[in-house]
Amino acid sequence: MDDITFAVLGTGGIGRRALDLPRHKDGLTPVAACDRHGIAVDPDGLDVDELLAATAGDAAGGDARADGGAGGGRPADGRAGGGAEAGGAAVERGGVAASAQAEPTETPIDDAIAASDAFDAVLLALPNLEHDFVPRVTDRFVEAGYEGVVVDVLKRSRVIGMLDERADDFEEAGITVVCGAGATPGFLTGAAAIAAQSFVEVESVEIWWGVGLESGYEDNRGTVREDIAHLDGYDLDAVRDLSDEEIEGIVDAHGGVLEFRDMEHADDALLERAGICDAADVTVGGVLDVRSDEKPTTTTVRVTGRTFDGETATNTFELGDETSMAANVNGPALGYLTAAVRRNRAGDYGVLGPAELMPRF
Amino acid sequence: MDDITFAVLGTGGIGRRALDLPRHKDGLTPVAACDRHGIAVDPDGLDVDELLAATAGDAAGGDARADGGAGGGRPADGRAGGGAEAGGAAVERGGVAASAQAEPTETPIDDAIAASDAFDAVLLALPNLEHDFVPRVTDRFVEAGYEGVVVDVLKRSRVIGMLDERADDFEEAGITVVCGAGATPGFLTGAAAIAAQSFVEVESVEIWWGVGLESGYEDNRGTVREDIAHLDGYDLDAVRDLSDEEIEGIVDAHGGVLEFRDMEHADDALLERAGICDAADVTVGGVLDVRSDEKPTTTTVRVTGRTFDGETATNTFELGDETSMAANVNGPALGYLTAAVRRNRAGDYGVLGPAELMPRF
Repeated sequence: MDDITFAVLGTGGIGRRALDLPRHKDGLTPVAACDRHGIAVDPDGLDVDELLAATAGDAAGGDARADGGAGGGRPADGRAGGGAEAGGAAVERGGVAASAQAEPTETPIDDAIAASDAFDAVLLALPNLEHDFVPRVTDRFVEAGYEGVVVDVLKRSRVIGMLDERADDFEEAGITVVCGAGATPGFLTGAAAIAAQSFVEVESVEIWWGVGLESGYEDNRGTVREDIAHLDGYDLDAVRDLSDEEIEGIVDAHGGVLEFRDMEHADDALLERAGICDAADVTVGGVLDVRSDEKPTTTTVRVTGRTFDGETATNTFELGDETSMAANVNGPALGYLTAAVRRNRAGDYGVLGPAELMPRF
Repeated sequence: MDDITFAVLGTGGIGRRALDLPRHKDGLTPVAACDRHGIAVDPDGLDVDELLAATAGDAAGGDARADGGAGGGRPADGRAGGGAEAGGAAVERGGVAASAQAEPTETPIDDAIAASDAFDAVLLALPNLEHDFVPRVTDRFVEAGYEGVVVDVLKRSRVIGMLDERADDFEEAGITVVCGAGATPGFLTGAAAIAAQSFVEVESVEIWWGVGLESGYEDNRGTVREDIAHLDGYDLDAVRDLSDEEIEGIVDAHGGVLEFRDMEHADDALLERAGICDAADVTVGGVLDVRSDEKPTTTTVRVTGRTFDGETATNTFELGDETSMAANVNGPALGYLTAAVRRNRAGDYGVLGPAELMPRF
C-alpha cells in the first residue's frame, strides 16, 4: 500500500499528537494542519518539530479551534489530554499562524479543502460541544468536492445518525467517513468487535473507563465540561452556559472525582451498526479523577455472549493503568484513518464505525 | 459489500464448524465442501444440515482429510475440537461421499479448484503434520489458475516463510492468502495488534492458552499428537512415527496435563510481519488438560509497550474460560476470510497474516 498523507483540523491535544505520533512509524505523513487563525500546508510533509513548537499552547489556550467551533477555545478531544501536555507555559503562543510554515487565514477549513489534493485523509480534531458540528464540517467537505477520508473522534450517539443521514452525499462525493475513532468509542468498540468473535450472539458489552487528569486538568477543562453534561441533571445545553467557576463548583462538590453511569456514548450505535449487538445491550460508564494522575479505575471492555456450542462466557480487554487517554485516543485514530484510506481507495464510501473496520463475519 | 461464498477443504472439526457457523449470520454462504473421498458443490449454497449429518464422524474418523494430507486421518484443526463434537457414535459414517449432495472423487482438491468460479474463498481445514502441506496445497491453486482467497489455520512459524516465498506467485495469480487464521495465531495475534495501539513501541507479547479437552479428546487425538511435538525432546518427525499407545503413554506420564513453554507458534512471525514487534519479543505457551473440560488456565494475551508519552504499560485480553477453542478458532477464521475477500476484491494479493488485517498505522 502506498504511503498515506493527511491533514489535521485543530491543533489542540488530539491534533498535536496526530502530528507527533507518525514520527514513530513509517508511511503516514502529515501534510496540512490548521487552527482558526492559520494553516500550514506542505505536500512533502510538514516540519512537525517546528509546528509543534509553534502550537505548544493550543491545548490550553484559545487557538485550538479551526473556524466554526462552538467550544470557545476548549480543547477538541474529549478526554484525550491526560498528562501528555501538562503545563501551560506556552499558552501565549499564537497557534498555527505562529509557525514559519503557515499562512494566516480566516477560512481555515475552506483553505484545507482547497489543498486537499495533497492529502488522502483529514482528521477532525475540533471542539465538539454542539452535536451537529462534525456533521456540518463534513457538509463543507462534500460541498467543496472533496474526495477522500474524514475521521472524527466524536463521542455522542446521536451524531452517528446525523452522519448516516448524509451517507448518500458521502457516497456520491467519494468520501469515507469514520466516526468515533478515538478511545471510546473507537479503540474500545474495536476491541469489543474483536472479543465478540468467540460468540454467535453477543448479550452485552460493558465499557468502563478510568481517567486520572491532575496534571492534564488545565489542558482539559473542555473535556471535564463535556463530561459533566453526562451527569444526572445536566446536558450539553446546560453545561455550555455554565461559567468556569460553576464548573469548578460541581467538580468540588464531587471531591474531584466524577463517576458516570449509562453515558450517551456512541459505542452503542457503532456496535449496533457493525452488527455486533443491539445498542440497548451496550453500557458505558467510567470515573474521572481530576486530582490525581493515577486512573481511579481500570479501563475495561467486557463482552458477554453465547458460543455456537451453547456456552455463555465473557471475554475481557483491559488497558494498562499507565496508558494515558492521549495514547489510547491517537494510536487508534491514526490506525482507523489508515484503514479507511485503504477502504476509500477501494471505492468503499459512506459512513463507517471503527467496529466495521475489524475483520468479522 | 456483496455476499461471500466459500469452500471448505476438509470436514473434520474446523471444516464442519465452518459449515455450521454461517447459519448464525447473514452474508456468508458455503457452496463447496470436500474430503478425501467426496466433494459437494452447490453454487446456491450447500444443504448444511444434510452435509453435517453425513460427515458427523469425520472429526474422529479417517475421512476428515482431502487428498494430499499426511496425518493418517487425524483431525485437521489443531486444538479446535474441544467439547463441541464429543462422542464418536457417527464414526462409521462415510464422510462427504455419504452426502446426497456429493460426488465421489479421488481428486477432491482438483475438483474444488475446478468449481472455484462458484466461490470467493477457500478455507483449508486439512491435517497439517507436515510443514509444507499448506504451501503445497496453495501451489496447486496457483497452478490451476485460481483467483480468490485462501485461508489456513496453520500454527508453525516456519510455514509463514514458505508461503512468503510464494508471494510473487500469489500476486501474479490474484490470490490473497491469509495464514494462521485460527485461535492462536489468528484470534490472539489480532487481539495483540489491537492492544498494541496504545504504544509507539511494543516490548513484548505474551500469549498463554488453556484448553480442557476431556470430552473432545477422542476427536482431537491429532491435536494432542501435534502438541506433543512442542514438548522438550520431541518434534513433528518424532511424533509422526509414534503409535497411539506411545502417545497415550506420554499423556499418562504427564497425568493428562501437558504444559508448553516457548512453543514454535506462528504468532511471532505474524506479529513481526505486521510491524507490531520483533518475533523474538513474542512468547507462546499454554496448558492442555485432556482429563477435564475445564480450562486449566485462562487464555490471555499480554501486550507490553511504551506509550508516546514515555509510560510503560501492559494491555490485556482474556478469553472467558467457558469459550471452547472451537468457538475461538472458527469465528475468527471466518472473520478473517471475510476481511480477505474484501482485500482480494480491492486487488490486494499475496500473503497476509491476521494482524495485518487489523486497523493500524
